[in-house]
Amino acid sequence: MKKRFLSIGLVLLTTSNVLLAKDIFIEDDKSLKAAIKKAVAGDNLILKNGTYNDMNIVFYGEGTEDKPITLKAETPGEVFIEGLSNLQIGGSYLNVEGLHFRNGYTPSKVVVSFKIDDERVAYNSKFTNNVIEEFTQKDREIRDQWIALWGQHNEISNNFIAGKSSPGPTIMVELKGNEHIHNHHQITNNYFGHKPRQGGPAGETIQVGSSYTSMAPSYTNIENNLFEYNNGEVEIISSKSNHNQFKNNVFFESEGSLVLRHGNYSNIDGNIFIGDGENEHMGGIRVINTGHWITNNYFYKLKGEQFRAPIAVMNGIPYSPLNRYNQVTDVVVAYNTWVETATPWHFSVGSNVEQSDVLPPSEIRSARPDRTVFANNLIYNSEKAEYPIHSYDEVDGIKFVNNVSNHANKSSVGEEGIAKQNLSMTALSDYLMVPGLSREAFYHGFGFDKITTDLLGNERANGNRVGAIASDANSGEALFDRENFGPSWFSTAQEAREASVIKASNSAELIAAVAAAQSGDVVELTAAHYTIDQPIEINKQILIKSSDAKQKATLNVTAANTAFLMLPKGNLHLDAVVMQGNGQQNAISTLDKYMSKAYDVAITNSELSHFDNVLDVSRGSFADTILVENSTFTDLNNGFMLNKETQNRGTYNVEHLTITNSSFDSVEGMIVDYHRGGYDESTIGGNLVFKNNVVTNSGKDQAQNLLIKNHGIVNVTLKGNTFKNNPVELVAVLWGEKDQKPVDNKVVESGEITIVQNLKLDLMY
Amino acid sequence: MKKRFLSIGLVLLTTSNVLLAKDIFIEDDKSLKAAIKKAVAGDNLILKNGTYNDMNIVFYGEGTEDKPITLKAETPGEVFIEGLSNLQIGGSYLNVEGLHFRNGYTPSKVVVSFKIDDERVAYNSKFTNNVIEEFTQKDREIRDQWIALWGQHNEISNNFIAGKSSPGPTIMVELKGNEHIHNHHQITNNYFGHKPRQGGPAGETIQVGSSYTSMAPSYTNIENNLFEYNNGEVEIISSKSNHNQFKNNVFFESEGSLVLRHGNYSNIDGNIFIGDGENEHMGGIRVINTGHWITNNYFYKLKGEQFRAPIAVMNGIPYSPLNRYNQVTDVVVAYNTWVETATPWHFSVGSNVEQSDVLPPSEIRSARPDRTVFANNLIYNSEKAEYPIHSYDEVDGIKFVNNVSNHANKSSVGEEGIAKQNLSMTALSDYLMVPGLSREAFYHGFGFDKITTDLLGNERANGNRVGAIASDANSGEALFDRENFGPSWFSTAQEAREASVIKASNSAELIAAVAAAQSGDVVELTAAHYTIDQPIEINKQILIKSSDAKQKATLNVTAANTAFLMLPKGNLHLDAVVMQGNGQQNAISTLDKYMSKAYDVAITNSELSHFDNVLDVSRGSFADTILVENSTFTDLNNGFMLNKETQNRGTYNVEHLTITNSSFDSVEGMIVDYHRGGYDESTIGGNLVFKNNVVTNSGKDQAQNLLIKNHGIVNVTLKGNTFKNNPVELVAVLWGEKDQKPVDNKVVESGEITIVQNLKLDLMY
Repeated sequence: MKKRFLSIGLVLLTTSNVLLAKDIFIEDDKSLKAAIKKAVAGDNLILKNGTYNDMNIVFYGEGTEDKPITLKAETPGEVFIEGLSNLQIGGSYLNVEGLHFRNGYTPSKVVVSFKIDDERVAYNSKFTNNVIEEFTQKDREIRDQWIALWGQHNEISNNFIAGKSSPGPTIMVELKGNEHIHNHHQITNNYFGHKPRQGGPAGETIQVGSSYTSMAPSYTNIENNLFEYNNGEVEIISSKSNHNQFKNNVFFESEGSLVLRHGNYSNIDGNIFIGDGENEHMGGIRVINTGHWITNNYFYKLKGEQFRAPIAVMNGIPYSPLNRYNQVTDVVVAYNTWVETATPWHFSVGSNVEQSDVLPPSEIRSARPDRTVFANNLIYNSEKAEYPIHSYDEVDGIKFVNNVSNHANKSSVGEEGIAKQNLSMTALSDYLMVPGLSREAFYHGFGFDKITTDLLGNERANGNRVGAIASDANSGEALFDRENFGPSWFSTAQEAREASVIKASNSAELIAAVAAAQSGDVVELTAAHYTIDQPIEINKQILIKSSDAKQKATLNVTAANTAFLMLPKGNLHLDAVVMQGNGQQNAISTLDKYMSKAYDVAITNSELSHFDNVLDVSRGSFADTILVENSTFTDLNNGFMLNKETQNRGTYNVEHLTITNSSFDSVEGMIVDYHRGGYDESTIGGNLVFKNNVVTNSGKDQAQNLLIKNHGIVNVTLKGNTFKNNPVELVAVLWGEKDQKPVDNKVVESGEITIVQNLKLDLMY
Repeated sequence: MKKRFLSIGLVLLTTSNVLLAKDIFIEDDKSLKAAIKKAVAGDNLILKNGTYNDMNIVFYGEGTEDKPITLKAETPGEVFIEGLSNLQIGGSYLNVEGLHFRNGYTPSKVVVSFKIDDERVAYNSKFTNNVIEEFTQKDREIRDQWIALWGQHNEISNNFIAGKSSPGPTIMVELKGNEHIHNHHQITNNYFGHKPRQGGPAGETIQVGSSYTSMAPSYTNIENNLFEYNNGEVEIISSKSNHNQFKNNVFFESEGSLVLRHGNYSNIDGNIFIGDGENEHMGGIRVINTGHWITNNYFYKLKGEQFRAPIAVMNGIPYSPLNRYNQVTDVVVAYNTWVETATPWHFSVGSNVEQSDVLPPSEIRSARPDRTVFANNLIYNSEKAEYPIHSYDEVDGIKFVNNVSNHANKSSVGEEGIAKQNLSMTALSDYLMVPGLSREAFYHGFGFDKITTDLLGNERANGNRVGAIASDANSGEALFDRENFGPSWFSTAQEAREASVIKASNSAELIAAVAAAQSGDVVELTAAHYTIDQPIEINKQILIKSSDAKQKATLNVTAANTAFLMLPKGNLHLDAVVMQGNGQQNAISTLDKYMSKAYDVAITNSELSHFDNVLDVSRGSFADTILVENSTFTDLNNGFMLNKETQNRGTYNVEHLTITNSSFDSVEGMIVDYHRGGYDESTIGGNLVFKNNVVTNSGKDQAQNLLIKNHGIVNVTLKGNTFKNNPVELVAVLWGEKDQKPVDNKVVESGEITIVQNLKLDLMY
């Protein structure tokens, strides 16, 4: 990250009094409190290098534009705030710099609040060059915010922020009250690193306002930030107020979109959205409401559809309730470029007239976009792509004019709306494709005179082109550079470490090996038999495998409750092992509480038998991925029980559950119970792949008469399986509206697979 | 009206070409079309004095700021536009001046439109110094607008506008499309004269946007206008968009309010609201939504409650649909003055939780105002007034601080919210009461530094006071002056004319006298008997009376359908007459159609018998007032049948129906049928006074078993009557929620009077 660090005059005379501005060195909570109390404009309160635990910093004061009061690290990056800590800022011209929040979480609802109380609100204050890293609640169900912006003219800049796992937006801009509107907050040059999948709503990286305050003119500027692997929910940024600007941000392989959820008249200019060409959850811009201008944006290798489309223009609800979906009107989408994105434009997304028997009228999105212009855009695909438009309703309110594609378009808008044109694109660097000269005719709509520059900052007056890039770029020009984001002193780059292989020839060595291993290491089982007489805790990435896959080691489980206990960030891979229980225990369980971060499990080429459950989880736990391949499961009470999030608030216990080429025999209860309740559209919604498996003699003893329960899971693949001699009524119930259907399954004496078109779910709002 | 008329340079050379700007004299439609076609910047298109019929003027062109193209009267006020005429304006810097629209109506939906079509919209154009007077649709049910503002930076100034009777706002600001927002239209210095009561919704004088476009930033300025006797509906001005300004307007004895219906962040500064101390329909400001600033306003002698309160702060609907009621938040009401207004502040207006059995949840206004400040206001009453606050729900979201009243307040806000202070008020002129020095402490809330001047334009920095007036005014200073509004060349002042008395000694003379009379004249019946063998049309104000009230003349009606036929603006008063029919005709009827304007009827000291109905009306007809006193009605089929507006869209056939000290005997059907259908809150809602009457032997022959039907009428007085020997089940059904209750009636062998608490009405939106 680039070297950009404020150097501030240290010893200055204030103009209004004779107090000397000064450097005050702080070494504990007490001296900090005292220093804040006495601080005058121009003072630097310097936290000496070290680790500060359980700090509740209340930073108030009145700096001036020329002489802010600054709370900062002695050496940026060498001051750590840990434990139950938080920071509240109230006053004017107060800066906080160079701190590193880690190994803890806030005991209040906010880590960094720009308000102490209603009387002490922050104005013209900055939180800059800091790191907040995995400073996440111990209990994944506790909602908090990491930064709450109140007041006006505050700045969040050059920070690295990553790893929030509990609900609540990472940054929240609050608009409740006239003191907080017209705020002109600057959220700039930050590096938003990995935000884990969350398995529930309220996982936004940034939220600006709420539906309740969505009428407010906010004027928040979110500019030049990097959002990398931000997978919290469908909305990476949720704009819920008026007149916000989103400019020159990079969204890199993030499973979500920039969403204009509530409020109107946003300006979305010069942003970059990069997908991987495969992941359908990586989105672009989703448009709701009125008067947005979407210009000069660059979209690359995006595959999303519907809510996650490269550009999703939604249907609204006629006379929508304040917290639902207003109609799209008066939106301008001009001079954008889509590269290697076959179907970039999705219209009437969310149209759900056919669901009127399961939803109330106030949920029916039937109002199509109106008075909206798509003009001067460019679409380039190296492979044939003749359907640039996908519409979920009639397209009658969009004006298409002077757009170009290098393929014929077979949509109804015709040549006049999207003209076919041979485009010579040059790949100048990773992700950056620049067109040669294209058509020289331009549509000049109302207000188009405001689009003066292109994505790269070139003046369009000096030779214009359709699409985001108006001129020849310099060879080798990068589309973006990670060094431009976040603090100067912090790097996410990690040295590659070679995994160690630790051999274990008996039970004690196995226990010791797991304990001693570093994350990523491999424990190799060299003996034939092991006994697990106490749960083995997994809080890192471990692969346990038999040294000879053809002669699998056997793990006899005598431990009382479970063989393996998953802890936050635990990642257990069992390969080529035989595991046997006594019928009462689980093979794998999670902590009962404080599962603050996600875990992963893989079972490959293994044989498990005589367990209560293969996997049983606690309510607040969440697995990113559970993967089963080429394994056999026999004599169980149940298989994979990911069914504890039954509050029906859109949450669920695992994001990806994939079971392939495996067999289940004599499972008394269910093979899989994977639950997501509540009518929520924020998340990926769960993914179950159950493919090429064989299930026999199972389901004898259960109330529900069902082998695979996937209630409310959005993405389900049920393909190529054989179900035989299972005394149940139903194998599975699929959800028709989500395009779920059984494919090539063989069902013999095992009930049937049914499809329910519209699932009745609890409304959440 | 003051002499303020633009004098514009006439013959100028344009800068961009060598066409000579010039005066072009127009004498007909054809020459006007030709002149518009050739017009260049700076041209004056001058309509020669005279009357122009059926003109559809399409005025397009491109003027410049310095050289507008002007369409104007040769002599202001001597050019009349009549018949089926309208005007469309599209282009830039186009001015229209000095025209008088009368004796006609628009054949399209708009009289003056600032848009010709989607490609030709008006910018920087003016409609100034014109008159539009009773240019109202022939059919009262046809909706139109008189001025539709589109585009940006247009001006409606110094016009006199009065007499619109059909639905549709007089001036409509349209916001559909980016071309029309941020419009900064100026509606200034206009004189909005008498707007008749309308008996139905959509009678606004000015509407800015609609719920559908209420998210738009409009920035319309409505400044220094006079609204006099504007009685169209509950909303004189309906603000339905954001960032509008209402400044220094005068609302004089108008039955309605300035209503912040949709949209937010209005600025309402320095307006004057004058009531008559009696009429409860004259309102002030009604507040819905967020972020309005209400400062420096002066309220005088207002008696309204609920929707028509001097200041009505409404309850909202939680997560309101777009077209209903958002919660009030972040509103500031500061430095206003209420004089001779006993209960100025009404909170949680519209609270209707108790109606949840007749209304759906999306209609229940339960969200109380929040984060709202009332500060530095002044209340003065010469008579004891200890309840300045009326609340329809708990008051928990309002901050009251530093307000003063000259009486103790017995509300819960206490002395800290509203302090008692002796105030010496000086009456400087009509309506203007100025306080002497009051408290010198002021609440300085967030943003209060923007309140720099007072109602009279004095700088508050030079000595501040609470209330709208911060300094001693000059003795004799007028609060407002009618001469400051409307065109320079037009006056509403009419010479007083003494009514003529025309004597009629036989039937032919009666017919002739009515035909010859001028409005306001009296026809005196000197003979004992007259025969009415054809309907007598009434299109003006006529009093027909017996010359000796003790020896009443008898009118024998032999005409086929009706004795008197009411025409638009007809006003018939029958005094001291005996009228007898043959049992088949009506005494009074209205035109079947084209009842473009309201009519009035009074019957006093008279005896009517043997009619089908006393009054039967047509659907589109509307009476302002029907008054009956000291009269007897016998042997009728029905009495007053005002029941034809059955579309249930909030419309009704008469505003005031007052029957007192009269008797009805042997009326076969109903005494009164007065209908208003639909759940509408825009109108006064009908007024029935039925007091001190005697009803006997009536109601024998009717399906409904009811004597007085008043379905949906809001204001009903049923007091001091005697109902005797009427074979009905019900005398009347009253509406409890509207505080209707029978008082001191004597009911003998006549069924009963019942009360329905919550009337079930059709929802209209």
